[in-house]
Amino acid sequence: MIKVAINGYGTIGKRVADAVAAQPDMEVIGVSKTKPSAEAFVANQRGYPLYIAEINRKPLFDEAGIEVAGDVTEMIKQADVVVDATPGGIGVKNKKLYELHGVKAIWQGGEDHEVAGFSFCSSCNFEEAKGRQFTRVVSCNTTGLCRIIHAVDEAFGVKRVRATMVRRGSDPGEVKKGPVDAIVLNPVEIPSHHGPDVQSVLPEIDITTMAMIVPTTFMHMHAIQMDLEKEATKEEIIEIIEAHPRMGLVRGATGIKSTAELKEFAQDMGRQRADLYENCIFADSVGFVGNELFLFQAIHQEADVVVENVDAIRAMMNGAADAATSIQMTNEALGFHAI
Amino acid sequence: MIKVAINGYGTIGKRVADAVAAQPDMEVIGVSKTKPSAEAFVANQRGYPLYIAEINRKPLFDEAGIEVAGDVTEMIKQADVVVDATPGGIGVKNKKLYELHGVKAIWQGGEDHEVAGFSFCSSCNFEEAKGRQFTRVVSCNTTGLCRIIHAVDEAFGVKRVRATMVRRGSDPGEVKKGPVDAIVLNPVEIPSHHGPDVQSVLPEIDITTMAMIVPTTFMHMHAIQMDLEKEATKEEIIEIIEAHPRMGLVRGATGIKSTAELKEFAQDMGRQRADLYENCIFADSVGFVGNELFLFQAIHQEADVVVENVDAIRAMMNGAADAATSIQMTNEALGFHAI
Amino acid sequence: MIKVAINGYGTIGKRVADAVAAQPDMEVIGVSKTKPSAEAFVANQRGYPLYIAEINRKPLFDEAGIEVAGDVTEMIKQADVVVDATPGGIGVKNKKLYELHGVKAIWQGGEDHEVAGFSFCSSCNFEEAKGRQFTRVVSCNTTGLCRIIHAVDEAFGVKRVRATMVRRGSDPGEVKKGPVDAIVLNPVEIPSHHGPDVQSVLPEIDITTMAMIVPTTFMHMHAIQMDLEKEATKEEIIEIIEAHPRMGLVRGATGIKSTAELKEFAQDMGRQRADLYENCIFADSVGFVGNELFLFQAIHQEADVVVENVDAIRAMMNGAADAATSIQMTNEALGFHAI
Amino acid sequence: MIKVAINGYGTIGKRVADAVAAQPDMEVIGVSKTKPSAEAFVANQRGYPLYIAEINRKPLFDEAGIEVAGDVTEMIKQADVVVDATPGGIGVKNKKLYELHGVKAIWQGGEDHEVAGFSFCSSCNFEEAKGRQFTRVVSCNTTGLCRIIHAVDEAFGVKRVRATMVRRGSDPGEVKKGPVDAIVLNPVEIPSHHGPDVQSVLPEIDITTMAMIVPTTFMHMHAIQMDLEKEATKEEIIEIIEAHPRMGLVRGATGIKSTAELKEFAQDMGRQRADLYENCIFADSVGFVGNELFLFQAIHQEADVVVENVDAIRAMMNGAADAATSIQMTNEALGFHAI
Repeated sequence: MIKVAINGYGTIGKRVADAVAAQPDMEVIGVSKTKPSAEAFVANQRGYPLYIAEINRKPLFDEAGIEVAGDVTEMIKQADVVVDATPGGIGVKNKKLYELHGVKAIWQGGEDHEVAGFSFCSSCNFEEAKGRQFTRVVSCNTTGLCRIIHAVDEAFGVKRVRATMVRRGSDPGEVKKGPVDAIVLNPVEIPSHHGPDVQSVLPEIDITTMAMIVPTTFMHMHAIQMDLEKEATKEEIIEIIEAHPRMGLVRGATGIKSTAELKEFAQDMGRQRADLYENCIFADSVGFVGNELFLFQAIHQEADVVVENVDAIRAMMNGAADAATSIQMTNEALGFHAI
Repeated sequence: MIKVAINGYGTIGKRVADAVAAQPDMEVIGVSKTKPSAEAFVANQRGYPLYIAEINRKPLFDEAGIEVAGDVTEMIKQADVVVDATPGGIGVKNKKLYELHGVKAIWQGGEDHEVAGFSFCSSCNFEEAKGRQFTRVVSCNTTGLCRIIHAVDEAFGVKRVRATMVRRGSDPGEVKKGPVDAIVLNPVEIPSHHGPDVQSVLPEIDITTMAMIVPTTFMHMHAIQMDLEKEATKEEIIEIIEAHPRMGLVRGATGIKSTAELKEFAQDMGRQRADLYENCIFADSVGFVGNELFLFQAIHQEADVVVENVDAIRAMMNGAADAATSIQMTNEALGFHAI
Repeated sequence: MIKVAINGYGTIGKRVADAVAAQPDMEVIGVSKTKPSAEAFVANQRGYPLYIAEINRKPLFDEAGIEVAGDVTEMIKQADVVVDATPGGIGVKNKKLYELHGVKAIWQGGEDHEVAGFSFCSSCNFEEAKGRQFTRVVSCNTTGLCRIIHAVDEAFGVKRVRATMVRRGSDPGEVKKGPVDAIVLNPVEIPSHHGPDVQSVLPEIDITTMAMIVPTTFMHMHAIQMDLEKEATKEEIIEIIEAHPRMGLVRGATGIKSTAELKEFAQDMGRQRADLYENCIFADSVGFVGNELFLFQAIHQEADVVVENVDAIRAMMNGAADAATSIQMTNEALGFHAI
Repeated sequence: MIKVAINGYGTIGKRVADAVAAQPDMEVIGVSKTKPSAEAFVANQRGYPLYIAEINRKPLFDEAGIEVAGDVTEMIKQADVVVDATPGGIGVKNKKLYELHGVKAIWQGGEDHEVAGFSFCSSCNFEEAKGRQFTRVVSCNTTGLCRIIHAVDEAFGVKRVRATMVRRGSDPGEVKKGPVDAIVLNPVEIPSHHGPDVQSVLPEIDITTMAMIVPTTFMHMHAIQMDLEKEATKEEIIEIIEAHPRMGLVRGATGIKSTAELKEFAQDMGRQRADLYENCIFADSVGFVGNELFLFQAIHQEADVVVENVDAIRAMMNGAADAATSIQMTNEALGFHAI
């Protein structure tokens, strides 16, 4: 059993913990919080040992009736791999701690590529992650872009990608962040960082991205255009999506035309936390103008990287022969079949 | 086994179907839709026989790959009780059909009291529903008001209630409804219909309500004030809430101060669809100014009436000795313990 | 003086009325409403004779204290030109009335090209509108696209345009429309109608557009990419924008990165109703990848077509020698200088 | 001419500057900013001398093409009165500076009562402000409450007030603040600070308030209930409102039922920045249950205190004989007549 610690039990960390706990070859040996909160109660309810950053805050947890197992260093010492899901910019400061204790570590896309020197997307470069000490799982948007671009590139060759990312303003539970009523360019400058970030995984892809933020809480929407090298048909692209273990089709017969209806569907289908681990590609949007492929895909910012973290753990621990094997194990353990 | 048909498989209907299916003494013999949709796929996935309003639309369902069991009349003929969860104003038109086939029927709060001549809230007037042919389950807001007012009234006597309801603009999946950026008085006139609607269940309560709509999708918030007859303390009110099977406390230690954080918590605790069947009363808000009790409660508009429908079925079918027995059966079958 | 009637005194109509009233060569001879409303009071306050669609509703206006001048037919008889600003789909039904009374008419972009057989954008095809009886001013988004594409095309040749339009969910005062919390593909299918609509003005432009709706009330945002025939620099594009009477630059030194901050600026600068008649192009977004030009522009859905309607009136009445003359007259009368 | 400096040229400061500049007995001798911004451009456009907090930042302003007149201390030395409109909590730190230069100062409601030892609302306690060195204008919500409570109290006696404030999440131009989709109790505890804050102006009023924040940008909505000492009728209350120079009626014939429609109306009526200086009381909401008065009022958070600052200046400088005189001067100079 691979011993996994999750440092930072927030939006991503709590989902990674549950996904790790569901795997047959992994166990959660601890999760961490800095102060009492609803999520700390959830960790207790789930039975994950809860470690805290500053042990002198233990009385605060005691008072709230939250059980504490010890401090974060103790947790790290017991781990084979630490998934660092602390807020962007904090993770890099923990690197020394991981080096000191000789533990493997995975960071999220909020940190720069340099933190690990290697950026990961399981369906693109699983092999390169094998046995590594440090890995960075790219952000939700970059993961979503890498999956579709790489799959189309393998089949038909991708000469150039132009994409506009319309991003959610805050996660559903983040009530202090806005905007309330605005479209915010983020950044104003073109290209946004997403293009170069895709190249950290797929260095040969020629891509330019634009990005903005809008007042919604659930899912980003990508408007994607790709120039292909070979001729392809809509049907061939649909087949690629259907065959991919991390992409799903939103079919026209469902009547779903929005992120909110998609969440409702995920919830109704029994997905835990309404999580959508897969790229959600709108079947009726897939189309061609000459050799230019167009499509819309929705990306669940809280979920798509969760399964990538699980695969990264397995790759770094040499726990699966190849990407396909790991992805299948991860998906099956979660009872996840692309919609 | 009580045979239950759900006429209208939307926001409320799909939840009632799942809650009924979970009960040991009931079964879902059918649900209905008018056209192919994501929810129709869900009905198939759940294994609920799907009946359609107009059988000549069956080819549309066939084309979408959705299995149809027959037309709505066939469904009604087989049922002991029909839960009518069609949109407000449609349900009343179905009454003749239920009378024709001699089937018991339950309507939702979108219909007027007169549709059934009796308005129901299980913790208030379960006994009166026993053996009835027709019952109306009051709306989500009225249910939430009735529960807390009745419980406080029984313990300390309620002389007068003043409440302001701040309502969600649309359900999460309803993307055509607004407002986007406004506070809408609904209605401008005072009192709103909620006060009289409470009196349809609790005729002796003196209550005035005000209501407005705001741009959010999850939960209404009630700002409630009650003049009590006897002296009471904050601790005594908290005890009443803790002891009530359909009310829960949002404790300060969780740090939860909003509807969105509450939904996140419900999701994390594994509640299906993040449903909150109980009144969510903020513990730190409960307080007194003289003999005036103040508190905030959040009401999940999609969920709180679901358990009431189940109890109503049981009462009408004489399936439980009393309210407490039915409520416990319903809650246990759902694995629901108030937060 | 050109006698102008405005049929439909809503979001667009009331702005066109004020813009017409400000012109030295035009006068508003009437505006119309179907029922008493805040806008009917505004028409009275402004001194525009108010005509009503059904004269038997006059008592309703009397009761509200709103002065009525007569019925819509009377208004049309007196007009040289009618600007039809009724809701999309209604305008076409008024055509017979305009034909019957031999009056010139202008429709908005909510009607199809066929209603007038000619689609107008003053900086693109003013000459062709001269003397016409019927003209359609294209929609706000199409107007914004036509202005920038035509200007760049004239200078450097545009081989191909790819654009994603992120649209506001409702106008600020429309409180019934959503979405509250969703990104809605509108339509799911690619291309959206905007590309073909641009071609109704600029038939030789090769363009593909994608569109979605988000929960905001003020301005659409366009993410635009153009393949140019000749080499150009960022500075040359900036110069074109600065020289254009209907395009303005949002400069980096203002710190403005969003539609909401832009509205605040327009309001602070004293623009009536915070109206932005010009394409608002973010200076720092303008850039090149090879010969591909990228930029973001915000389009005020309530305002940009207003000045186009004024120019259309002048063209149809042969009231100005050329586009430049009319545009300058219109802008000056409004005291409008591009930001 | 009273020489007025505005320290902090943001949401409130820029409005106070324009209102002061419009008065016949006052002039704006300077406004201040800390860094280049859209508002700094506006100050230049308006012709207000712009002073900066740290003079070594002048090159940043030079580079942006914004003219700077000097540093803030120079501005304060020239002033008779400083209106401190810096963000809440900053103003108190400037007190020493005002004392050092012996200048009169006015703070906003974001500071505590203690900063000035006196809290002001012109229709309630103008006399007490006469000749003072320091005054605090209470917050927008408190101002709105004080106006209506005091006016009703004078006429009929107010025994007790219960009010729920539903507050906007962010100002329209603040794109970083949320919430996006939540109702946030602020605070969870009852009473909110608004009740005690009303008592800083009207110490004898018995009031309990509750408050929450919702995702909208324009106006707060107050649901107010008052127990009156004497009998009164709806018509008498309406008369009080109509006669009050800082309260306006939203009449049913306008069809306005929301904050957004109210803003649209203010904009259409030509109000600068769509500003609503008056309490906007919905005529159809005014009503009685026994001796309990109920009503809804909307309060424009950016505007209602602006006119109060102008009156406070006049009172402190002994520039008007009484409240009625000052209020009339202020209103007339702004061309403001309550709706």
